[in-house]
Amino acid sequence: MDKKKISMAVVKRLPKYHRYLTELIKNDIDRISSKDLSEKIGFTASQIRQDLNCFGDFGQQGYGYNVKELYNHISSILGLSKQYRTILIGAGNIGQAIANYTKFERLGFILEAIFDANPKLVGIKIRDIAIRDIDEMEEYVVKNKIDIGIICVPRVNAQKVCDSLVKSGIKGIWNFAPVDLVVPDNVTTENVHLSESLMTLSYLLKDKQS
Amino acid sequence: MDKKKISMAVVKRLPKYHRYLTELIKNDIDRISSKDLSEKIGFTASQIRQDLNCFGDFGQQGYGYNVKELYNHISSILGLSKQYRTILIGAGNIGQAIANYTKFERLGFILEAIFDANPKLVGIKIRDIAIRDIDEMEEYVVKNKIDIGIICVPRVNAQKVCDSLVKSGIKGIWNFAPVDLVVPDNVTTENVHLSESLMTLSYLLKDKQS
Repeated sequence: MDKKKISMAVVKRLPKYHRYLTELIKNDIDRISSKDLSEKIGFTASQIRQDLNCFGDFGQQGYGYNVKELYNHISSILGLSKQYRTILIGAGNIGQAIANYTKFERLGFILEAIFDANPKLVGIKIRDIAIRDIDEMEEYVVKNKIDIGIICVPRVNAQKVCDSLVKSGIKGIWNFAPVDLVVPDNVTTENVHLSESLMTLSYLLKDKQS
Repeated sequence: MDKKKISMAVVKRLPKYHRYLTELIKNDIDRISSKDLSEKIGFTASQIRQDLNCFGDFGQQGYGYNVKELYNHISSILGLSKQYRTILIGAGNIGQAIANYTKFERLGFILEAIFDANPKLVGIKIRDIAIRDIDEMEEYVVKNKIDIGIICVPRVNAQKVCDSLVKSGIKGIWNFAPVDLVVPDNVTTENVHLSESLMTLSYLLKDKQS
């Protein structure tokens, strides 16, 4: 595939395709017209054709998409054909919930270790993974070639943990701390800012009712 | 304020202003120039002026913004000057983590009750809030004038729970289930789709390394 720049709007839609195609496969549907897919997913058929055209030739005019083929292709575009070695830092409420989420493993994100700064938590197991002391983190990341760090520590500690991960060679950070992390250009961050999502909801609620 | 339509891009930036202004207040900073604010927050000064102009006159050219005033105004735009009565449905991993997050209460989102379909969970307390049987939910929502339902149930049950909340008069839904809920026009949904966020990360990782 030639390396053209795909817009973030398209990128943000891809996981939704992935989710709907997963469902079609579960329901043993082999083939779907762009019209039917569009009705299911809520994008227009022409939007879907345009999105998929960014990634090569899928169009089977009048015949529809081969579901399994499209699923595999979108998985591969999303980087889901490989496995990622991940660690999670901060075994508080959100950290524990994320660590317990086995769905991420099915997508290829394997949780290899959990770290926390609280000595009381060290040794406790989540899904057979013992929580380790955060002081062991850098060495562990280097030694085990970890791809992704999942930051679930409090806001004030997040940048420090991030710096430490970057120093150890991690290239991807999934950040749950309510802070904008500063990273070098070769490191990717993706944020889940829960409070901001809740504020968006309250704005929209107010806007709709005024 | 006249009711003009604010773009979603601006709306999505507002919580970030709120977060940075909260920090400035914590650090006892009364006044900030648009240049300093822009350095902190990472938007250009002109972007900030443009954003804030959507909501009336803030410009104090050469004198900067009054932090407390700007904070109050943005809080009010975000609908954070009032309190919201919320319930949470689905006391699994994510549900428990969200229920334990007291930060949301400080923003004005008060968790009034938790519901689950699993009889084994009914009666167990999270932060002094006993989990109730989901069969009591509709009556509870009507009686207690609940504003927001937080859906943390598995995908297959999410639409059913949503329908039930809407029927009982709820106007806002914060949805953690990996599904696009169908709601009437007068109901607002905001999604936190964790798997989609993780897929965005893997896409960007792959894109950066290829």
